[in-house]
Amino acid sequence: MNIAFVGLGAMGLPMARRLVAAGHAVAGLDIRDEAKAALAAAGGRAAATAAEAARGAELALLMVVSGDQAEAVLFGEDGLAGALPAGAIVVAGCTQPAAQARSIGERLTAAGLGFLDAPVSGGTVGAEGGTLTIMAAGPRETFEAARPVLAALGDKLHHVGGEWGQGSLVKTINQLLCGCHIAVAAEALALGRKAGLDGAQMLDIFGASAAASWMLGNRGPRMLQQDPPVASAVDIFVKDLSIVTETAKALGAATPIAGLALDLFRRASADGLGKADDSQLIRLYEKMDGS
Amino acid sequence: MNIAFVGLGAMGLPMARRLVAAGHAVAGLDIRDEAKAALAAAGGRAAATAAEAARGAELALLMVVSGDQAEAVLFGEDGLAGALPAGAIVVAGCTQPAAQARSIGERLTAAGLGFLDAPVSGGTVGAEGGTLTIMAAGPRETFEAARPVLAALGDKLHHVGGEWGQGSLVKTINQLLCGCHIAVAAEALALGRKAGLDGAQMLDIFGASAAASWMLGNRGPRMLQQDPPVASAVDIFVKDLSIVTETAKALGAATPIAGLALDLFRRASADGLGKADDSQLIRLYEKMDGS
Repeated sequence: MNIAFVGLGAMGLPMARRLVAAGHAVAGLDIRDEAKAALAAAGGRAAATAAEAARGAELALLMVVSGDQAEAVLFGEDGLAGALPAGAIVVAGCTQPAAQARSIGERLTAAGLGFLDAPVSGGTVGAEGGTLTIMAAGPRETFEAARPVLAALGDKLHHVGGEWGQGSLVKTINQLLCGCHIAVAAEALALGRKAGLDGAQMLDIFGASAAASWMLGNRGPRMLQQDPPVASAVDIFVKDLSIVTETAKALGAATPIAGLALDLFRRASADGLGKADDSQLIRLYEKMDGS
Repeated sequence: MNIAFVGLGAMGLPMARRLVAAGHAVAGLDIRDEAKAALAAAGGRAAATAAEAARGAELALLMVVSGDQAEAVLFGEDGLAGALPAGAIVVAGCTQPAAQARSIGERLTAAGLGFLDAPVSGGTVGAEGGTLTIMAAGPRETFEAARPVLAALGDKLHHVGGEWGQGSLVKTINQLLCGCHIAVAAEALALGRKAGLDGAQMLDIFGASAAASWMLGNRGPRMLQQDPPVASAVDIFVKDLSIVTETAKALGAATPIAGLALDLFRRASADGLGKADDSQLIRLYEKMDGS
């Protein structure tokens, strides 16, 4: 398929490369020229403007950071929505509030375009390996039309509902679990350190017991390091857990643990850890513990 | 080995049966006659008194509910500590505060006995299958002497330290993770229900994403049921998370999430769910959410 790909960041670039490798024609758009050059080097095409990326595109994939960025790309000056051919499908892979995803879907429909609210999970490892979880919502026929593209990116494709916003809701709850599990792992490992226990042995024991979580296994080793490489920053969970608590408030649902976890990530960010790897939330605990 | 086994409950009985099957001579003690009869039927011996269970025993395994119960069995009137042959090893498999485990070890040493502070994790499935995680602390030579018994019960044997209390500390942190993960799973699934999402599909998606936890996989399906069978009760986590917060307070460590999770389990217990399966913590969220 002819694909316009917007947002060639840590997730987007490896995803765009996979689409090229799967035989799709990919025109890439990003504010950073070096990201577009990297896509071109992999066999894609660097687009100078949204109009150029949109030319002949059957599908536009947005891997931007937020719903606000998606709206700006689509509906801003010289936006993608006005440039895409009639009937093209827009797929938004970002984490955004469900109401924003619904609004985008309605506006694109009015513009004669299709839309999938399709957040992803699995990080850069999943983006590079084509093993992402994709939580797509929108009309079933739109999902089926986009399947050849989605199947090159993820091996766990879920059509979670016919209404835009349902994909974002599932992703929001996914992030509730992820963010809280990181905070719980930090709390547990910091308590163990304060008690004089060996961190590596704790990970070994808990990783094979009923205490295990994907996040403990993935972030735990980095919690034991000072200044590990940044796979995903503390501020990403300030954003995502804010979406969780705002979504819960709008629905009238109680999320006391997510609210507390958001507070902890916010405090870590205020302590200067906003751009640090999210595993470094444990530094906030060590500060509280005086250890 | 000749073993005195005290506490033939949901965990203890299948463990005692495994020891019999492994060729050990097991004398069982329990306040319930039917539990002792079940052990006798499996080839063990029902003991009428602690003195009778202790006769000739090289090792005594306590699978009682709490450290207080362990102290009563050992040091109460006609207690086990006064009846065991000199040099016998006492193994306490219960979840208890670290300070209590240290105190028991010191008193048993003064009585000429060995001691291992060796909590287990893995539930009834692990007890029946011999796949428990065992977190043992105490002198290395005591651990090695008890290994033939422990190896019949668990396939993940850890000597976590030479000092009594360290096993209980590791177990305490294990329970912090377990209890918080149950509460987070309930919060996530209740939010999804409030948002109109399909519970089974959520478990399918989150179980294969970065949102996964052992507890979500194990308790999640029971959270979607009304009145599932009781594998472990809400009140067990009221007890275990109380030990977590008291341990953290004694160490000067912050455990805000565990404190909140304890509060949630307490509220569920106050709502009449104390004896219900711990997965039913989700009923508290549904009450808060009016769903």
